[in-house]
Amino acid sequence: MEGKKVLVVGAGPVGSLAAIYASIRGADVEVYELRNDLRNIDTTPLNFTKSINLALSERGINGLRSAGNPELLEAVLAQTIPMHGRMIHTRSPTGARSEQSQLYDVHGRFQRSVDRGALNRVLLDYLESLPNVKLFFQHKMTGADFRVKKAWFEVSDRSSTSDRPKEVEVNFDLMIGADGAHSATRYHMMKFARTDYLQEYIDCLWCEFTMPPTESGDFAISPNHLHIWPAGSFMFIALPNLDKSFVCTFFGPVELFSRLEKEPDSALLDLFDKYFPGLTDHIKPGDLVSQFKRNPHLPLINIKCSPHHFHDSVVIVGDAAHAMVPFYGQGMNAGMESVRVLFSKLDQFPNNTAEALASYTIERTEDAHTIADLALGNYQEMRHSVTSPLYKLRKFVEESLDKYFPSLGWATQYSRVSFSNMRYSQVVQHSRNQKRILSGMLLALAALAASGPAAAIYLFAIRSRLMKNVKFPWPRR
Amino acid sequence: MEGKKVLVVGAGPVGSLAAIYASIRGADVEVYELRNDLRNIDTTPLNFTKSINLALSERGINGLRSAGNPELLEAVLAQTIPMHGRMIHTRSPTGARSEQSQLYDVHGRFQRSVDRGALNRVLLDYLESLPNVKLFFQHKMTGADFRVKKAWFEVSDRSSTSDRPKEVEVNFDLMIGADGAHSATRYHMMKFARTDYLQEYIDCLWCEFTMPPTESGDFAISPNHLHIWPAGSFMFIALPNLDKSFVCTFFGPVELFSRLEKEPDSALLDLFDKYFPGLTDHIKPGDLVSQFKRNPHLPLINIKCSPHHFHDSVVIVGDAAHAMVPFYGQGMNAGMESVRVLFSKLDQFPNNTAEALASYTIERTEDAHTIADLALGNYQEMRHSVTSPLYKLRKFVEESLDKYFPSLGWATQYSRVSFSNMRYSQVVQHSRNQKRILSGMLLALAALAASGPAAAIYLFAIRSRLMKNVKFPWPRR
Repeated sequence: MEGKKVLVVGAGPVGSLAAIYASIRGADVEVYELRNDLRNIDTTPLNFTKSINLALSERGINGLRSAGNPELLEAVLAQTIPMHGRMIHTRSPTGARSEQSQLYDVHGRFQRSVDRGALNRVLLDYLESLPNVKLFFQHKMTGADFRVKKAWFEVSDRSSTSDRPKEVEVNFDLMIGADGAHSATRYHMMKFARTDYLQEYIDCLWCEFTMPPTESGDFAISPNHLHIWPAGSFMFIALPNLDKSFVCTFFGPVELFSRLEKEPDSALLDLFDKYFPGLTDHIKPGDLVSQFKRNPHLPLINIKCSPHHFHDSVVIVGDAAHAMVPFYGQGMNAGMESVRVLFSKLDQFPNNTAEALASYTIERTEDAHTIADLALGNYQEMRHSVTSPLYKLRKFVEESLDKYFPSLGWATQYSRVSFSNMRYSQVVQHSRNQKRILSGMLLALAALAASGPAAAIYLFAIRSRLMKNVKFPWPRR
Repeated sequence: MEGKKVLVVGAGPVGSLAAIYASIRGADVEVYELRNDLRNIDTTPLNFTKSINLALSERGINGLRSAGNPELLEAVLAQTIPMHGRMIHTRSPTGARSEQSQLYDVHGRFQRSVDRGALNRVLLDYLESLPNVKLFFQHKMTGADFRVKKAWFEVSDRSSTSDRPKEVEVNFDLMIGADGAHSATRYHMMKFARTDYLQEYIDCLWCEFTMPPTESGDFAISPNHLHIWPAGSFMFIALPNLDKSFVCTFFGPVELFSRLEKEPDSALLDLFDKYFPGLTDHIKPGDLVSQFKRNPHLPLINIKCSPHHFHDSVVIVGDAAHAMVPFYGQGMNAGMESVRVLFSKLDQFPNNTAEALASYTIERTEDAHTIADLALGNYQEMRHSVTSPLYKLRKFVEESLDKYFPSLGWATQYSRVSFSNMRYSQVVQHSRNQKRILSGMLLALAALAASGPAAAIYLFAIRSRLMKNVKFPWPRR
């Protein structure tokens, strides 16, 4: 991409990674970000419209690894805390509390908890060290013409004394939009590309909480788990931070939030105490109530669109192309994978960007739609199924097959999504096949189990000659 | 709405009508339109992104009628040409041409062909005569804050010598967005309201043609029909104009358009001649080819969104809320009905705009989604089913019931959609019920038809005593 000018819109983790990929390929890279530089912590309020509580897994790591600089990956991994499994917190009908650890993977692979800001800082610092990258903060895209490859940005520079913000016009060869679920790139692209687009809000709000370290300065609960308090229609989760606190999220239907917002504080505490056992040991009741009141109650959006590009001039990646609900922990991982796939296509068609982007759209829309659906489905699993005996049985059988018969190539859908780089659409195909085989095996087992006693009774009846007058449906010896 | 400032965005037929409704209720109305005043024909190129070929029916007329000024309605109706039915043009496998007239309605009700520009002019002229309405053309909405009720417009005044367009800030009490399928109002509203939104392009492009009057200055084909040349996967239609020309539209799959764009002119002519018999008698072959090349090939979009409002500050109507494919001829009619419903809600809750808008969203999203689905379904009917014997039989039976047993309240779905003001969702409910009854009747008829011969044979057998030894399953006399 020597001599090409690549504009990246959005300096979040996915946009930063895209800029690194473009820079390594020799492009002149300019990154335009609507907000302030988040490294200037004084001027940037915590961005509560995006989760600061992320799970980094293989697809994200592979995206970083494929950028080509091992030190960058190491710097990111240094910011993470391994989570080897889920810790499921429940209370029985008699009131007894239980904690059950469910390992993620029989081969010891794990998720990593990472602070969004910390990850972003590492990427931005690295970007700033690259000679062919320029960063522009407080630049809001106001328009783009993707036929003549021009874009306009409004500069909200606070030092300016003019009453109207300055506007700049920028030419480019390729624009990469990584500007999130409410992407301006996508909005302007949709004026050029005939785009099928769906956005839907699910009946679920979320509110963030912090669980502080203990008085002795240690983690309040196991740091190497993703903690879940499943409660049927709602749930509470917690992920560890490097400073030994936990970032927690309460998810629930809109109606539950409305009710809790109206009712006295005790309603919230009663609910949390009943369904989230142990929580009030670690977050003081007063603190819990004030965090619920102070922190915003935010919606969850699911976005599908196609195509992800227009001609040879613009392409969207990450949440801009495929915002999903957070229940598979794949949002950022899928975004980083999108960057890797995009540049593999650009490498494959070095002299035909239009062809590369078209190929990217074909592959990536299918996979993006698949993981969006899986993420929606996992909401049910996290709130409810993790505690069901059938779910546990299936997990046990599938993991045993994976562990003891590795040559079968058996794996759970979860481990293929989280610990492999198999295309999401293929993961679902494999899972479907496995489900069919598993159902067949279970049927055979059931037949065997049923036929055993029947055969025994039959043999016993013949041998003991107790039933001389009974007619057997099959020939007697 | 005395003393309230109502901003209408979009000065098309639906926006103009909304401004009239607001003006009559005493509001201070300001209308902001992106484009030039279409009445200054010299500066406004024909807007080819919207069809200029419209069918006005009861819902649109009722919207105009309910505005309260009979002269306005008369002025609009003077611009229309009645179409009493469809004229179906086909060619048999042997090459024989046929034309078949299918009346729209047994009670003589009809569609009206109207030029979009002519209709718009009447409304704008009337708007301009109202003292409490101001019109602003070449004003592009660039932003809106629906909490503080402020909006920003960029003025693209060509007389200005400044290199950057002027921007104005406008306060309002209520904004009504009638700015079409690519609505800026909706875009900005979606930043405030949690909106479920779907847009999809169907596999169909369209291209407009003009069929000139004959050399003697008359209509080339019957002026009181909507002409259809159905051809399975594609079709051609023609609607009469007051100047005795016809506005025609060719609809077909994307792939067919791509093929015709590449192939020699003769391919287009061969196709038209084979499937659209008689057309080349009225549009000269050279003209047909040059119109296909000159006029744009445009897509069709289907939009569903919910809600249609945010709090008490903004509401969307017409294509901005429910752009649909044109195959039921209901796009503008539904838009004008939306205006009527919106103001009926505002009248119902004079002191609670938020309640009025919420009530509008509940009623109107359901109906808008219904007509969007019906419009999609009608594409199949127009291209194909109008020629099928079963379709004709059902139309005949239903229309006969309507005509000869009016007390039954029977009516075709088409006539309820086009000639009544019943809610679209109720139309579909009625059609479902009628379909069930009709199926029952047809079954009973079939049973009767089958039982007739059986009874005859039975009676004959008894009478002739030919079959003394045959055991009848029912008692013999």
